[in-house]
Amino acid sequence: MKKQNLPTMKDVAKEAGVALGTVSKVINGIPVGDEYREKVEAAIKKLNYEVNTYARGLKVQKTNTVTLIIPDCINPFYSSLAHHVESHLYKHGIWMVLCCSNGIPEKEIDYLTSAVKNQSDGIIALTYSDIGKYVSPNIPLVSFDRMFENNFTPIVASDNYKGGILATEKLLEFGCKRPAFIRFISPFKGEVNKRLEGYLKVCESHKIEPIILDKREYEDPNKEIPIFIKDQLLPDGKLTFDGIFSNTDYHGYLAMKTLQKLGFQVPEDIQIIGFDGIHKFGGEENELFVSSICQPVPELAKTCVDMILAKDRSMLPSLTLLPVKYQYGGTTRDPEADPKYKK
Amino acid sequence: MKKQNLPTMKDVAKEAGVALGTVSKVINGIPVGDEYREKVEAAIKKLNYEVNTYARGLKVQKTNTVTLIIPDCINPFYSSLAHHVESHLYKHGIWMVLCCSNGIPEKEIDYLTSAVKNQSDGIIALTYSDIGKYVSPNIPLVSFDRMFENNFTPIVASDNYKGGILATEKLLEFGCKRPAFIRFISPFKGEVNKRLEGYLKVCESHKIEPIILDKREYEDPNKEIPIFIKDQLLPDGKLTFDGIFSNTDYHGYLAMKTLQKLGFQVPEDIQIIGFDGIHKFGGEENELFVSSICQPVPELAKTCVDMILAKDRSMLPSLTLLPVKYQYGGTTRDPEADPKYKK
Repeated sequence: MKKQNLPTMKDVAKEAGVALGTVSKVINGIPVGDEYREKVEAAIKKLNYEVNTYARGLKVQKTNTVTLIIPDCINPFYSSLAHHVESHLYKHGIWMVLCCSNGIPEKEIDYLTSAVKNQSDGIIALTYSDIGKYVSPNIPLVSFDRMFENNFTPIVASDNYKGGILATEKLLEFGCKRPAFIRFISPFKGEVNKRLEGYLKVCESHKIEPIILDKREYEDPNKEIPIFIKDQLLPDGKLTFDGIFSNTDYHGYLAMKTLQKLGFQVPEDIQIIGFDGIHKFGGEENELFVSSICQPVPELAKTCVDMILAKDRSMLPSLTLLPVKYQYGGTTRDPEADPKYKK
Repeated sequence: MKKQNLPTMKDVAKEAGVALGTVSKVINGIPVGDEYREKVEAAIKKLNYEVNTYARGLKVQKTNTVTLIIPDCINPFYSSLAHHVESHLYKHGIWMVLCCSNGIPEKEIDYLTSAVKNQSDGIIALTYSDIGKYVSPNIPLVSFDRMFENNFTPIVASDNYKGGILATEKLLEFGCKRPAFIRFISPFKGEVNKRLEGYLKVCESHKIEPIILDKREYEDPNKEIPIFIKDQLLPDGKLTFDGIFSNTDYHGYLAMKTLQKLGFQVPEDIQIIGFDGIHKFGGEENELFVSSICQPVPELAKTCVDMILAKDRSMLPSLTLLPVKYQYGGTTRDPEADPKYKK
């Protein structure tokens, strides 16, 4: 292929009808007005500019570091992801810079734009901050779970929809007649939202009326879960539901504690299945906090690493969903784990 | 001070009676024979060479990254330390490279020597690998807990001796007559070893005969703890001890599970105090796994960061011990937490 066949930044500026500096800003993740940004992105797409940029391997000055952005390193799911991302990067001779965003968008933006300044070779981000306009086609970025409103950021996630179906079907298989669903989520669109869709699909096919606690992540689960459960108490002291599919193990665990305080037995009266697969003290040799749909953390980490190190980013799948598994954690009437539940 | 007053590397070589290259190797953490190394270190000390080296600030090319070495990012104590070290470094505009050693000494050595090659400005290490000879006075290093056989690596740790005393005294205060002690530790000398010393001190002053399970970290606690507890069963079905001070929350939790399987009630029959202060799901708003002597993780992290960023390393304290606190976690007959234990 001759060099002159490849579109240049000038061609993009001409096509978009904007100044060259505006194109540069968009490519380098520096905010410009939405109208200009959309024009430049349309021109980039039309001229297939980004693909050629990557294929030419413009970014030659390697730092041999990749940055992982996670909300914190306290939540066992995030810290386990950090552990496995580091291990896989090290196999490739790459060091991991860790950013715990603590919910501060400015901190994430700082690390995101660092890749442009050649301080990091790429970013793997698990973020629910409002940073969409800082994401540029020129920053090697792999997003865990979160969808961005662009068509160049590959997403890696667990198969949350199938996980939602699996959790709800398992509750029915173990004897539940009417499982409820609880979640506390961010306003940003991500694969994680599909856990509810899976629950609703199974409810629909079994003609079960859904019962849902649907809250934002900033609301206090230690208040909201007890309010929800007490709201579902019937005059005879029973609950409207006999099972809970919780969007995370953590909220499932809080629901279990609330139910036990109210005198209900788990799993005898109410069964619970969470999502994530969090082991006590983190080690896989330890028990789970609750029965759970487990995310394959080592495989998710490996997939993110393979993608961020890919030489030709134009060929990356836009979405990669890895399979999840149900695992017993003491809160289900699972006959395989406890023979007393055999029919 | 005139420049000619400061000893040079040549002076060190002359004093030690070795070649200049040998001095350079020792300073840069490249292994040489023990005999040569000792000669060079003695000469460095005699001539006060290192102090002047640091004071002159020879290392001018900054990368604005500091490396944290931890065994893994799965254990909640380690991942929480990583979280707080990252937060404090970020306040100084420094990024954290994370190394999860996974017990592979070569990996730790790789990161340790990186500081010499100017790929990192310093190392904060929580390590129990055999890497002592790769530690050089020229590598800015702060060690968490572990002691190295040199006199230039500052150590930051919790006050483990006072923690050992506090745990044992708390058990006695809550009604124990004879507490036992259990641990699984590495062969390398660290502050953590002093938890046993604290236990022994209290036993001695109360004329209590100690009962100790003292194992290496590679031995399986899921086997060894049940064997130990069964060994302590008396013909009348009671145990020789009525309390356990466990070197970690994790092993205290395993002991609780074993005791419960054998039909003992915790804390009614046997009280347990662990060490670390691990919260379920990591969050401080959650309960502890067991009553515990809590390490001040945010303050430990801040101290490590302040030391690794210190401009004049010659003035750093060789040992800094931060205070620990007892916190109720359901496994002690603590009258402040549960009024039914008020006398």
